[in-house]
Amino acid sequence: MTNFLAYDDVTDLNALIQEGLNAKQKPFADQSLGHNKTIGLIFFNSSLRTRMSTQKAAQNLGMNIIMMNVGQDSWGLEMEEGTVMNGDKAEHVKEAAAVVGKYCDIVAVRAFAGLKDREQDYREVVMNQFKKYAGVPIVNLESATRHPLQSLADCITIEEFKVRKRPKIVLTWLPHFKPLPQAVANSFCEWINHMDAEFVVTHPEGYDLAPEFVGNARVSYNQDEAFEGADFIYGKNWSSYQQYGQVLTQDASWMVTMDKMKLTDNGKFMHCLPVRRNMKVTDEVLDSPQSLVIEQAANREWSAQAVLKGVLQGL
Amino acid sequence: MTNFLAYDDVTDLNALIQEGLNAKQKPFADQSLGHNKTIGLIFFNSSLRTRMSTQKAAQNLGMNIIMMNVGQDSWGLEMEEGTVMNGDKAEHVKEAAAVVGKYCDIVAVRAFAGLKDREQDYREVVMNQFKKYAGVPIVNLESATRHPLQSLADCITIEEFKVRKRPKIVLTWLPHFKPLPQAVANSFCEWINHMDAEFVVTHPEGYDLAPEFVGNARVSYNQDEAFEGADFIYGKNWSSYQQYGQVLTQDASWMVTMDKMKLTDNGKFMHCLPVRRNMKVTDEVLDSPQSLVIEQAANREWSAQAVLKGVLQGL
Amino acid sequence: MTNFLAYDDVTDLNALIQEGLNAKQKPFADQSLGHNKTIGLIFFNSSLRTRMSTQKAAQNLGMNIIMMNVGQDSWGLEMEEGTVMNGDKAEHVKEAAAVVGKYCDIVAVRAFAGLKDREQDYREVVMNQFKKYAGVPIVNLESATRHPLQSLADCITIEEFKVRKRPKIVLTWLPHFKPLPQAVANSFCEWINHMDAEFVVTHPEGYDLAPEFVGNARVSYNQDEAFEGADFIYGKNWSSYQQYGQVLTQDASWMVTMDKMKLTDNGKFMHCLPVRRNMKVTDEVLDSPQSLVIEQAANREWSAQAVLKGVLQGL
Repeated sequence: MTNFLAYDDVTDLNALIQEGLNAKQKPFADQSLGHNKTIGLIFFNSSLRTRMSTQKAAQNLGMNIIMMNVGQDSWGLEMEEGTVMNGDKAEHVKEAAAVVGKYCDIVAVRAFAGLKDREQDYREVVMNQFKKYAGVPIVNLESATRHPLQSLADCITIEEFKVRKRPKIVLTWLPHFKPLPQAVANSFCEWINHMDAEFVVTHPEGYDLAPEFVGNARVSYNQDEAFEGADFIYGKNWSSYQQYGQVLTQDASWMVTMDKMKLTDNGKFMHCLPVRRNMKVTDEVLDSPQSLVIEQAANREWSAQAVLKGVLQGL
Repeated sequence: MTNFLAYDDVTDLNALIQEGLNAKQKPFADQSLGHNKTIGLIFFNSSLRTRMSTQKAAQNLGMNIIMMNVGQDSWGLEMEEGTVMNGDKAEHVKEAAAVVGKYCDIVAVRAFAGLKDREQDYREVVMNQFKKYAGVPIVNLESATRHPLQSLADCITIEEFKVRKRPKIVLTWLPHFKPLPQAVANSFCEWINHMDAEFVVTHPEGYDLAPEFVGNARVSYNQDEAFEGADFIYGKNWSSYQQYGQVLTQDASWMVTMDKMKLTDNGKFMHCLPVRRNMKVTDEVLDSPQSLVIEQAANREWSAQAVLKGVLQGL
Repeated sequence: MTNFLAYDDVTDLNALIQEGLNAKQKPFADQSLGHNKTIGLIFFNSSLRTRMSTQKAAQNLGMNIIMMNVGQDSWGLEMEEGTVMNGDKAEHVKEAAAVVGKYCDIVAVRAFAGLKDREQDYREVVMNQFKKYAGVPIVNLESATRHPLQSLADCITIEEFKVRKRPKIVLTWLPHFKPLPQAVANSFCEWINHMDAEFVVTHPEGYDLAPEFVGNARVSYNQDEAFEGADFIYGKNWSSYQQYGQVLTQDASWMVTMDKMKLTDNGKFMHCLPVRRNMKVTDEVLDSPQSLVIEQAANREWSAQAVLKGVLQGL
């Protein structure tokens, strides 16, 4: 694997899921692979699971780790080309990426959507500039439009918990008062479209995701109808793609409750975390055996390890 | 050792002190014990000694380390159960602790008292929630009411420097303009009450510590009287427990000076650091051979190593 | 090497440059040297290259690393002696340095000039207090008046790219709207004065550097004249030393352009980074093969490794 920015960088999804499950069984089996290799973890945004699980995966593989919080440990980076840099950004990504690529064998980057300018976010400027200038493989720790390490962990979790060959998987929008990026939802669509599954996306009108991500999923504006017979309910909030970055509704009836879960076929509840309890989903659901949120988060370690192993093998 | 939250988690104080002294003699003797084990160090508050000494101890034991500054690297955590999470806390400790416990073999947490609500602080919500939900051993890096790694370092230091079998140890309140937690003072009482010592606590009226911590110590409101014949003077400021979190006085006559030290029996001065010079204690005392503050801070490494060794052995 | 604070700590510059080039060839040749040794990296200011390259160098040498952002991970430090500490600084460097020195075998410190009080900055209070109190070797990660790890990387880069035995090297001031320290420029002068080179410093009037740093360099207020026949153009902005810390001009005609580079003898452009594009130097120059800024930044790893090796050997 040369880079890991999106699903397109994956050659064989089933093999990658299997690598994750292998790592979970034998975490230290490939510890010599990363010996004297360094991964740089570059954060433009906060992180808990991604930060810890990627670090852990790299340690399992015997790698050295260099962490960097941009704008905190160091300074802001200019992403646009040709600008006169007389503002608050002290360094251009051309230099920063090239330099980080000199110190690191792999560079992993987290940079959220700004949610101001859809065209700019969907160009994936930060990831693409790092890819262009770092000179080493780039791993996406959540970008403006995608969160592929999360999606792979989701696929691993579904593989572990599915009770039929072709499960029904429902991605449902959840209410939130803040505008959140579409990255997790986009990415989930992108990956699940490659799984053997019946895939439904449900959300209020006005919350349709970008068509290139929705792909072959069936879209429903009726949450109850969508939940019927589902094996997996994947909850997530996102802000509007059409009226870009806006919160169009906080309709509490979209919160996942135990009553809603009863519409499913003994379905499992998934969410990428962090999750706001009793606003997006009730305590009752999260604290029930139907919730997979902890297993899913735990699988982030194995998702990251499968990817880093692939990238290390490609060095 | 399953957890290390308070003195109650210690089986044999003398044996633990001896482990610390052994680690000081041979820091790398147990380096294989922590191989492929990971400790998560979770900081809700700033730290210098605790951060560095615990990291160092973990490295001496061959462990991997994951650091996390909550609210800086990641986001705020909700601690109370059953709340509707529509405020500024993006994640509940139920999820955060459980997830961190999936990535780490040991989770160490620092979370100071808020000093607003005594009942809440003394319930030790953060530590207890981590203990309840992490699923792995928890180590206290200073909590609302205790700082047991400091207290163990203090016991190790007293063991090294005592000149009689049953020394006189005096905990004295020092003046400060800011309201500080009672944690270090509480914890010192809790531990010294289990040492073979004559133990006196001295402070202005209104600064009595919680009775469950004071235990069998003799309390005196007369600092001069308390200092007489002392072997160890342990200085610390704390805010009022009765009028919770308040600064009742900044009476400069409670500052430790060389004249005060002359009342002791060639006593040693101890303080957990950081210490504000010439406000809590004079330069003259801190720069004299009677000061043990650096030795005491250095012993934080061996205190942490003794505890982590015990926890690793219990895994 | 006992400490690495300035050029004076270097015994043999050519040997040190050669150590850097050796490390570049065989990064892991001395990995056993740092086994069970710990370096503390203490940052009072932001950093990207210094942070990452020093960490990388330490890892290449097999060392353990403890990072600390002062004022973020921990609290502010009082540097002056004898003060009554009733302000915002919670700890004195006397204690902080001594304690850090107990946990670490080498302590590396970054602390920029305040640019308010020239006498205080040029006394190098932070470095000298750490040197006085840490009790272990101190490495300068950029201080108020010097950045020797950068200067060594610069010397290594010049050694690699020079096409004649005695190259012409020009340090040129560049325009900037913010007041920046003189540290990089000072240090470059201090080191290049010990290289076999024709050395010219050029800047507008009022920007003369301190005489003890300028040394034997020829000073010119005419940038075009200075550039003629140069092999290396080293760009940097600094604020005034005479009118201390002030921005006297932002004269855009001092920006390095391709036209200016044509005055040189096919000269190379160097800059320590971060660099503000199209304000200090044009895209055209930075993106041309004449620019060495990435190679120079990459050499920070080998500069740090040569120095840390020397310090480790002196332990």
